[in-house]
Amino acid sequence: MSQTTTGRTRLSPEERREQLLDLGVRLLATRSLDELSIDLLAEEAGISRGLLYHYFGNKHAFHEAVVRRAADDLIAKTTPPVEGGPVERLLISLAAYLDYVVENHEGYLSLVKAAAGGNETLREIYEDSRSALNGRIFREDAQPGAEGGQIIPDTPTTRLVVRGWSAMVEELVLSWIDEPGEVTREQLLEVMAASLPALVEVVPAAARQEPGSA
Amino acid sequence: MSQTTTGRTRLSPEERREQLLDLGVRLLATRSLDELSIDLLAEEAGISRGLLYHYFGNKHAFHEAVVRRAADDLIAKTTPPVEGGPVERLLISLAAYLDYVVENHEGYLSLVKAAAGGNETLREIYEDSRSALNGRIFREDAQPGAEGGQIIPDTPTTRLVVRGWSAMVEELVLSWIDEPGEVTREQLLEVMAASLPALVEVVPAAARQEPGSA
Repeated sequence: MSQTTTGRTRLSPEERREQLLDLGVRLLATRSLDELSIDLLAEEAGISRGLLYHYFGNKHAFHEAVVRRAADDLIAKTTPPVEGGPVERLLISLAAYLDYVVENHEGYLSLVKAAAGGNETLREIYEDSRSALNGRIFREDAQPGAEGGQIIPDTPTTRLVVRGWSAMVEELVLSWIDEPGEVTREQLLEVMAASLPALVEVVPAAARQEPGSA
Repeated sequence: MSQTTTGRTRLSPEERREQLLDLGVRLLATRSLDELSIDLLAEEAGISRGLLYHYFGNKHAFHEAVVRRAADDLIAKTTPPVEGGPVERLLISLAAYLDYVVENHEGYLSLVKAAAGGNETLREIYEDSRSALNGRIFREDAQPGAEGGQIIPDTPTTRLVVRGWSAMVEELVLSWIDEPGEVTREQLLEVMAASLPALVEVVPAAARQEPGSA
């Protein structure tokens, strides 16, 4: 973290590529994917376009690598804490998600558009990270050490509900950023976190029962 | 409704255009927008491509007109009944929505993709119909004659929540069609309908109070 991206320090090709990816992610935060060009990265990194093509192949592969890195960042940053009750841990994770989308709004929005609009590679990355975020809700809340235990039983219906909830959370965040109106950040977060257990409650009892549970 | 689309019956240009739009909507049900060409419509309607260009101008204008008509159909078909309690009326409206998306899956999906992917005209139509569907929830449930009255107070936070809920409902329906798993149509509908009041319940009390209400 002490090296600047324009430095001429000797790095291994792998380290250099990682550094360039980090720069790409930072540039994407305030730009759409369309605006994130090899030229821009070359200029910001102070290296030749030729070298960038050497590292990334072509623009699509570069975009793919940057978006994968951004998705990994999102997953890492929203990891819930190990301690605390399930709703509290969910709230902390959602606050991190909200902050991430606020800070990386342009890039995030362009990924959502690209994924929804039919770019298959980006759609796959988007779906993978969505699955990782959603899957965590079942997995991590079921950690034996977690205070309060599991808030969501894992059944086909609750899986579907979590998928719907996650689409709702994204819509809430993007709509709120566009037009917060009188809705405070705190109110938004409260709705996002409290809605998950509330939605699980509306699942018909028979569809909320895990196989083998009492 | 008694005239076939291939008939040579004398119709006014306006009636003829309406008939062609209806045919376009029917063709779109099982096709993406990309697959809905002027050629296909000409073949199905048994008239010349030239005449279709005369009615619609170009392919984009034709798509726009068909999608507008499809959106109007969706809004009409999902109109809740006047009688009944608010949750029951919502359930009937949502069942109609579910059936519509099942019956028009290809076309609906391609509209969602086009709207999300950055086609501004289609995005506008999509947003307009979304607003019509969402706005109805506040307006019609507030009908003075409606049994049970209003289920949702109209505040900035509840407006945002309804927007999120509506994104969730769409995701639930599209995911369920893709992969119903063990989730029955009834369970799905119950979750869709019951989730709205449940979500409103999680809105912090202060943000659920309409201005001027007690």
